[in-house]
Amino acid sequence: MPKISHKGVQMPESPIRKLVPFAETAKKKGNKVYHLNIGQPDIKTPEVALNAVKNADITVLEYSHSAGFESYREKLAAYYQKQGLPINKEDIIITTGGSEALIFAMGSTMDEDDEIIIPEPFYANYNGFSTQNGVKVVPVMSGIETGFALPPIADFEKLITSRTKAILICNPGNPTGYMYSKEEIQQLAALVKKHDLFLIADEVYREFAYDGFEHFSVMNEESIAENAIMIDSVSKRFSMCGARIGCIVSKNKELMATAMKFAQARLSPPTYAQIASEAALDTPQSYFDDVIIEYKDRRDTLVNALNAIDGVQVAMPKGAFYCIAKLPVANAEDFAKWLLEEYDLNGETVMVAPAAGFYSTPGVGLNEVRLAYVLNKEDLIKSAEIIKEALKVYNK
Amino acid sequence: MPKISHKGVQMPESPIRKLVPFAETAKKKGNKVYHLNIGQPDIKTPEVALNAVKNADITVLEYSHSAGFESYREKLAAYYQKQGLPINKEDIIITTGGSEALIFAMGSTMDEDDEIIIPEPFYANYNGFSTQNGVKVVPVMSGIETGFALPPIADFEKLITSRTKAILICNPGNPTGYMYSKEEIQQLAALVKKHDLFLIADEVYREFAYDGFEHFSVMNEESIAENAIMIDSVSKRFSMCGARIGCIVSKNKELMATAMKFAQARLSPPTYAQIASEAALDTPQSYFDDVIIEYKDRRDTLVNALNAIDGVQVAMPKGAFYCIAKLPVANAEDFAKWLLEEYDLNGETVMVAPAAGFYSTPGVGLNEVRLAYVLNKEDLIKSAEIIKEALKVYNK
Ligand SMILES: Cc1ncc(COP(=O)(O)O)c(C=O)c1O
Ligand SMILES: Cc1ncc(COP(=O)(O)O)c(C=O)c1O
Repeated sequence: MPKISHKGVQMPESPIRKLVPFAETAKKKGNKVYHLNIGQPDIKTPEVALNAVKNADITVLEYSHSAGFESYREKLAAYYQKQGLPINKEDIIITTGGSEALIFAMGSTMDEDDEIIIPEPFYANYNGFSTQNGVKVVPVMSGIETGFALPPIADFEKLITSRTKAILICNPGNPTGYMYSKEEIQQLAALVKKHDLFLIADEVYREFAYDGFEHFSVMNEESIAENAIMIDSVSKRFSMCGARIGCIVSKNKELMATAMKFAQARLSPPTYAQIASEAALDTPQSYFDDVIIEYKDRRDTLVNALNAIDGVQVAMPKGAFYCIAKLPVANAEDFAKWLLEEYDLNGETVMVAPAAGFYSTPGVGLNEVRLAYVLNKEDLIKSAEIIKEALKVYNK
Repeated sequence: MPKISHKGVQMPESPIRKLVPFAETAKKKGNKVYHLNIGQPDIKTPEVALNAVKNADITVLEYSHSAGFESYREKLAAYYQKQGLPINKEDIIITTGGSEALIFAMGSTMDEDDEIIIPEPFYANYNGFSTQNGVKVVPVMSGIETGFALPPIADFEKLITSRTKAILICNPGNPTGYMYSKEEIQQLAALVKKHDLFLIADEVYREFAYDGFEHFSVMNEESIAENAIMIDSVSKRFSMCGARIGCIVSKNKELMATAMKFAQARLSPPTYAQIASEAALDTPQSYFDDVIIEYKDRRDTLVNALNAIDGVQVAMPKGAFYCIAKLPVANAEDFAKWLLEEYDLNGETVMVAPAAGFYSTPGVGLNEVRLAYVLNKEDLIKSAEIIKEALKVYNK
């Protein structure tokens, strides 16, 4: 029998999907499951995007340019410029989701056994993309005590070796909800400049900023124009995860020419999804205002309800729509399984993501879960109530 | 300044796009360019597919299952079964184009410095996907004299080392148009079984078979159920290249579980495109009958016209919609550039793909070009006429 590759064996399973069979058990028992485990928003996709696809006049569904429609890149650059980001059409390659942008960024900057430093906890699929690229993730710890602020720069610098090629941050963070300040980005900028590293910033949640916090992009830091790579996506911004459109953005011409070779090999990003994404840029500001108010409300609802539970600790997220909750249990994964398999409150239970899968250091985050506040407020209140009552039973 | 990865530097540029700047020159001079260089069909996408998207009732454009819609996988399995392929829903993962299926297949079977044997000339992007995966392509030569038939098995066996993990074939072939016989597939089957290798068969042109030749899939060869991986795509079958939907198919459960981890990391294939692809399976048989008649006609038109030119040799393709033409020139790339930059016949010229880029062995195929017969007959006749007259001028 032929053998699977080592890297195939090492590819991690998604910590988000790990509990799916247990959720099926819950559903088979007739229980309703509140899904706080995944970042699939329930927010409506802007009609202008959906209508553009409905009204598209296509007779031959052709490959597009490998970098994506020129018209879309132009309009997207204008969108960024309006947000104060100095990004031009040539600085953008449209990708199949932010996911593919991350794969291109890693492939263009790193070879087998090269190292990438990532503050943990981090978006779990960074592990998968790293394994796929043969790249080694070197985690630097951030903690719930500081609300997952940037670890001291000395902690990064200690980890830099001759194989270190890049630092990857997620801003605002999934799963932490933390948003880096201008000062934190500038500290990182000085570091990558000093050591000639790339700074890859996953900014797919850029617009989801609360309490007046202003997002500071790596593209705003002109001193690192050659180092900075921005990853973006329409998935969350326009609640169109299924489109599969993102982009890789950089001022570094050599980097972009390299990413373009990866883009050409796979021919083009999806055409229908580009039509939707281009049209989505005409979404009225009121849509975003409403979405931000809704998420802020949801955040406050969930985080306050959780913090009110005995022994539960949640850092208030500044952005995105996730939070990490520390629970009064020894093993949050066991608890999460138990919630699905054995527990219900009046026929209802919740599904959460054990946070250990978001850490790269073994044994860390064992008593934490990640929650996505992508449900309506009523459901979030019920979910927190279920967790509260469940903990009482579980800890008896 | 931070450094690009070695593999990024090594990523090949597409031989198909290499001449694009020269085509722009031709267009700037006011010349009409017949594009025989790319496999973008002009055939209409089935209306049933386009209408399904128009009529889709979407309010939140969500991620789909990472393996693709279950309903689509079911219907696709039924489609294959009707064609005599023993493929079930569980044997299929929907991918973002055949391109992504190839990336998953390579990633699941090979590590850095592993080797994959591929008969050359081959689809140029196999080079890109191999480089991306750190995999070494080991070419085995097939020639125009045999019409690009399978090289002797001894030629393959000679090349097998401890690093050889897979053999990759394209059937029918881009750029050769050759279609492997049942006997040829069985020879390969015996070889991969003997040496415990994977046999990856890129069958994206499966339905494009002419002159009564019957396509024999690796999935039909039950002796290699654990070795065989089929790559498929809707791009050419339904003239929906822009959808970006393909699939990886195998009976090997371990392989599929591994590919699934790659699929989960990138979340899901595009949703609109899956709606179109699922609906496309209802395309009436008459559509395919018409398409095959059209392509056969185009093939005969182009190949006969080219073979009638002094010093030009073309092997008659049995499938797909490409052919390799040997030209009476020393360097076909120079000729192709000249066609665009300096030549025109009554304000018209043609763009062809230099075939050297489809070979992995340096210096081979220098006097060959690849032509895609994706234009209507009239344009193909004109194109052949232009090549004929151009060669006279060029060779003076
Ligand atoms: C931090 C982060 N980056 C990237 C992605 C990838 O998203 P997509 O490929 O849908 O753009 C996600 C999706 O959840 C994410 O949370
Ligand atoms: C032989 C072959 N394989 C795979 C592909 C990839 O096609 P897609 O990614 O559009 O499915 C192509 C496209 O031209 C091809 O010719």
